[in-house]
Amino acid sequence: MLRFATAAEMRRWAETTQREGKTIGLVPTMGALHHGHASLMRAARADCDRVVVSLFVNPTQFGPHEDFARYPRMLDADRALCEAAGVDVLFVPTVEELYPPGAQTLVDVGALGSVLCGVSRPGHFRGVATVVTKLFAIVNPHRAYFGQKDYQQTVVIRRLVIDLQLGVEVVVCPTVREPDGLAASSRNAYLSPDERRQAVALSAALAEATRLIAAGERSARKIREALGVILGGHPAARVEYVALVDPDTLEPVERLAGRVVVALAVWVGNTRLIDNEVITVSDA
Amino acid sequence: MLRFATAAEMRRWAETTQREGKTIGLVPTMGALHHGHASLMRAARADCDRVVVSLFVNPTQFGPHEDFARYPRMLDADRALCEAAGVDVLFVPTVEELYPPGAQTLVDVGALGSVLCGVSRPGHFRGVATVVTKLFAIVNPHRAYFGQKDYQQTVVIRRLVIDLQLGVEVVVCPTVREPDGLAASSRNAYLSPDERRQAVALSAALAEATRLIAAGERSARKIREALGVILGGHPAARVEYVALVDPDTLEPVERLAGRVVVALAVWVGNTRLIDNEVITVSDA
Repeated sequence: MLRFATAAEMRRWAETTQREGKTIGLVPTMGALHHGHASLMRAARADCDRVVVSLFVNPTQFGPHEDFARYPRMLDADRALCEAAGVDVLFVPTVEELYPPGAQTLVDVGALGSVLCGVSRPGHFRGVATVVTKLFAIVNPHRAYFGQKDYQQTVVIRRLVIDLQLGVEVVVCPTVREPDGLAASSRNAYLSPDERRQAVALSAALAEATRLIAAGERSARKIREALGVILGGHPAARVEYVALVDPDTLEPVERLAGRVVVALAVWVGNTRLIDNEVITVSDA
Repeated sequence: MLRFATAAEMRRWAETTQREGKTIGLVPTMGALHHGHASLMRAARADCDRVVVSLFVNPTQFGPHEDFARYPRMLDADRALCEAAGVDVLFVPTVEELYPPGAQTLVDVGALGSVLCGVSRPGHFRGVATVVTKLFAIVNPHRAYFGQKDYQQTVVIRRLVIDLQLGVEVVVCPTVREPDGLAASSRNAYLSPDERRQAVALSAALAEATRLIAAGERSARKIREALGVILGGHPAARVEYVALVDPDTLEPVERLAGRVVVALAVWVGNTRLIDNEVITVSDA
């Protein structure tokens, strides 16, 4: 497995690889890799001739009071996971490499970045779009892999790729879950044992949404209320939002039809967790 | 000369050309080509294996009361000029091609875009940065050519390329002038014969700045005042700004040292003209 720290080395390798007619799959990560990331790497490994994983804790997607400084960093373990997944290249740039002195250009994705998680995290998706644009420019991958767990991020990146004509196929892989249903996330490491038990509230609420919709419920308000009851039953949980939105526009849905995303952001203790389910509403 | 209207065709040609190991030079234009553009094409022709010229009047870089609708469009003449300059590919996308339905992503270059021309044209450089990012993503050129006449634009694009890691060499070519000194510009076509005569005020003012600095003047204020007198002697001219700024940061300079850009924006009748000179201040 190769490892590059500079954009110049990474770009040179990618250009040579492309000139040989090889396809490149990119898995952009912030490190602290778990089996959710591993599933993205497996998908890339199956689809592409070469697999690149970037590890970069991107400062511009964290707010001033968020967890940038304490975000888990564990390069040795990450490297071992990538090696085991058959990754060809690890790209591990420094902050100065991706944000050179004087850097001030930002990629803004408009309204898609200001709803849902964008309400409490203003600038978050601008930071995501900015760093993904840079990574795509450096690696110029054929395909890039993202987890459905970060649903809004996948919508933002699909939009970004269309709007800026980046010519990358965005592949969204299913959320990977722990045995009790909790979505895999690097931030799960912040949870105390008790919080970890209560964190199952999110996936339990999504399961209830699926059940209600299958049983014929079509009112978003009623589903939100039912999920609020489930989440409220976990004393460590504090709801940031429970939303039912259009899968493409992220606009709120009131009367369900077609496909809907049920999206949650819930604080469990001092840890902010998100989860979602895309549900097809039958016309019966 | 090939001609493409879609991003997909343009990208396919560029990828094939690159796989053959050929270098590509891009000259982004809004059409209404003149000998300033021709000099950019000649430079690209000399440096690169293949030369692409894009013709696209970019709506996002025009303000709501600016001249987007009446900007000169003359595709036949433009095509002939490109053919004569030995251009390999004309890329002439529609607005819908570069701004697909629902497009909302914008590339913001921060403070560099809000000074000088950015004061009266808010959003202009965001529009420029956005469309240039798209063109670079589609064509993926080795080099891109811009005229020094649009000095602030060249600074913005250099910054954009560094910040977003676009991997394109930005080549800035000298301003091409008419025999009386007027900088070549598509907007010169708007001038009445009398305005055309008075438009020489801009280059005359820049010549006076060069003379004053050579004579030892180091006060930006005094130079601005002297230029104001010259411009004020032309009744059709109305000054928007006369600025002496740092060539890299575009920040105002008060005491001259090193290199300085003298930049002007002047309305002549209903036509807004810009011009500039980069002057090296001797230490004598």
